[in-house]
Amino acid sequence: MKIAVLGGDGYCGWATALYLSKQGHSVAIVDNFSRRQWDHELGAQTLTPISPLSDRLRVWHRLTGKSIELFVGDVTDHDFLSSTIRSFEPDTVVHFAEQRSAPYSMIDRKHAVFTQVNNVVGTLNLLFALRELRPDCHLVKLGTMGEYGTPNIDIEEGYIRIVHNGREDVVPFPKQPGSYYHLSKVHDSHNIMFACKIWGLRATDLNQGVVYGTVTEEVALDEALINRFDYDEVFGTVLNRFCVQAAIGQPLTVYGKGGQTRGFLDIRDTVRCIELACLNPAKSGECRVYNQFTEQFSVLDIAHLVERAGRKLGINVEIDHIPDPRVELESHYYNARHSKLIDLGLTPHLLSESLLDSLVNIAIRYRDRVDASLMMPQVNWREPRNDRRLQVNMTARASLAGARQDERTTETKTRKS
Amino acid sequence: MKIAVLGGDGYCGWATALYLSKQGHSVAIVDNFSRRQWDHELGAQTLTPISPLSDRLRVWHRLTGKSIELFVGDVTDHDFLSSTIRSFEPDTVVHFAEQRSAPYSMIDRKHAVFTQVNNVVGTLNLLFALRELRPDCHLVKLGTMGEYGTPNIDIEEGYIRIVHNGREDVVPFPKQPGSYYHLSKVHDSHNIMFACKIWGLRATDLNQGVVYGTVTEEVALDEALINRFDYDEVFGTVLNRFCVQAAIGQPLTVYGKGGQTRGFLDIRDTVRCIELACLNPAKSGECRVYNQFTEQFSVLDIAHLVERAGRKLGINVEIDHIPDPRVELESHYYNARHSKLIDLGLTPHLLSESLLDSLVNIAIRYRDRVDASLMMPQVNWREPRNDRRLQVNMTARASLAGARQDERTTETKTRKS
Repeated sequence: MKIAVLGGDGYCGWATALYLSKQGHSVAIVDNFSRRQWDHELGAQTLTPISPLSDRLRVWHRLTGKSIELFVGDVTDHDFLSSTIRSFEPDTVVHFAEQRSAPYSMIDRKHAVFTQVNNVVGTLNLLFALRELRPDCHLVKLGTMGEYGTPNIDIEEGYIRIVHNGREDVVPFPKQPGSYYHLSKVHDSHNIMFACKIWGLRATDLNQGVVYGTVTEEVALDEALINRFDYDEVFGTVLNRFCVQAAIGQPLTVYGKGGQTRGFLDIRDTVRCIELACLNPAKSGECRVYNQFTEQFSVLDIAHLVERAGRKLGINVEIDHIPDPRVELESHYYNARHSKLIDLGLTPHLLSESLLDSLVNIAIRYRDRVDASLMMPQVNWREPRNDRRLQVNMTARASLAGARQDERTTETKTRKS
Repeated sequence: MKIAVLGGDGYCGWATALYLSKQGHSVAIVDNFSRRQWDHELGAQTLTPISPLSDRLRVWHRLTGKSIELFVGDVTDHDFLSSTIRSFEPDTVVHFAEQRSAPYSMIDRKHAVFTQVNNVVGTLNLLFALRELRPDCHLVKLGTMGEYGTPNIDIEEGYIRIVHNGREDVVPFPKQPGSYYHLSKVHDSHNIMFACKIWGLRATDLNQGVVYGTVTEEVALDEALINRFDYDEVFGTVLNRFCVQAAIGQPLTVYGKGGQTRGFLDIRDTVRCIELACLNPAKSGECRVYNQFTEQFSVLDIAHLVERAGRKLGINVEIDHIPDPRVELESHYYNARHSKLIDLGLTPHLLSESLLDSLVNIAIRYRDRVDASLMMPQVNWREPRNDRRLQVNMTARASLAGARQDERTTETKTRKS
């Protein structure tokens, strides 16, 4: 199967591209390196030292004999996207090519507008390009569980049967997203549903939970294939961040009570879910929605798991409750279905002690690369303008912190002597 | 009360600005004349000869002694919008400043993207400007009944109580909009709801039905104050178009079976609803939704009403069923609540024979300005690209058509003689 992975240089995209290539699919990556650019903007870096994409692809080819095609450009540029679709002729497009951080979208007006325009226009361009050039191509679109918010009823997979005043209908599940980013995904979902209806396109909207982990079988083959591991307050997902905080002896920063419950999944399940969606395409005109996660945890649950894993490794982990920078319920009902991907054959990698050990170990291994100033939240949902400034007054590298400590000790010693 | 009317040079905006000014409010119009520009693009003109806005405002001042302030600019330009809000300091912002035609948004990709970016960014800019500069200002936003689509259950006003698996919650009413334009309004609704939640803004989202009529008490004062009367396939609303077709002896173009049922209202009720919303502001943090229409009709109902009105005026009206250019159900359940504005004091002007007479009479009065080539649909929802071309081969003006007819008759006569 010919599969184009839009956003294939990002965290989920890279793991997915390699996995699909490994399974024998003919894969193309479409990317404009926005994700790397945002790191520069934020003064952040992935914990793991990722290679340039050209190196990644060369090493993948050398190790496996498999070629991944590369199209460099922006999906909001319709000419570029059309010519890519025309040239590669995909059977499936997996669309990860969006700005995917909630805090990034909440920095200020410009970031909110950028996120919504970037995501909505990219997806609209793709819908039009498919309609015009590949109407039978299956669109696998990454949504988010955050589209639903935290309603007081069970969350279904995309649609809900409502009985109301003696009549009934199956309608899209009501959406209550919690950031301008999550809103952009809701906008996408509505646009995609409509395009399937009027043009008979086929789409699978995957409402993904919070992804953790970094190692898949493929990226483990070589250091040059290593995947991102984001731990900063803007792009870092919560479990990854907690592991890094544990590794450098910083307290885990739980927002508020930590009762915020979300769906989580291992990145090894992300890639398998994508494959399952590709192998079982939606019907023409169908906009199918799957909830893509394997387990529910509260943020505090996650913190306790990391605390326990740290203890086993001889690290004393503290848990801090800091004011929640987001506007969200800190304790609420949460029960979301997630059976459709299981029905298609997903065997989940549940969050295990061994996985937690390995995550903390990765954090320890790259401890020297940690910038401890990046983990305290600087983006407050309540403010329309958050001036994120590089905390130059804070010790940056954990390693430097150690070095400085040594220096100071030496100084004191010198003075004393 | 200081009220800024964004889009105050448009159809609903102009009537609203005058009405609010008449009631003694201090009104400012904010507009960039996009609506007039789109007429140029489409080769269309309002049936009624509207004056330039500067003339309109001068005449209004001369007749009533009331000044309406004018800010010329684009709400997608945040600097302009901020400085306008800062300078005028509104208590209420009535936001009509969006691209409001479904067919326009369905012309092609560029028009779809333009519509969504224009509408979404304008509204985002406004939300940020209010949060930063006038957090207590009440936002009265024009939505559309088309956001709901045509579900098989009763449509509530914005929110619905759902009982599901033994639990219950009140959630946003599920949205199934039928064009990229209607989708843009759904995107807005989600964004506004979120901004109210995180920032405590106060908003009223008015999901308006199809507006008909052109004369309000204020615009009737002088020919220079006359309002738009759009009848073309892109911006014309159905009742106005049918009246024009009747007036020039063209069959009424009913799309498909004509069973499409929608909510309708008189423009005199539009302006009163806006005033009621302004006078009864939402609470801080509240995003209130009202369904703004007074009666439900199917398209075929409307056609029959015009047929009857025509007969009374001695015009023989034919009804044509042409293929529906839209993707929509041609017969369906439709029952939408609309009691909240009534509860606030709205006394509806129901669609009466006298109103229909007056509409057909306006169409007859301006018959010479009718371009008969503008009423057949040229935008097909099923196509991703609709080349709307000026139908230069079609007789344009009804008056010219008459003239030519005379010519031809003369010719024939001449030949015969």
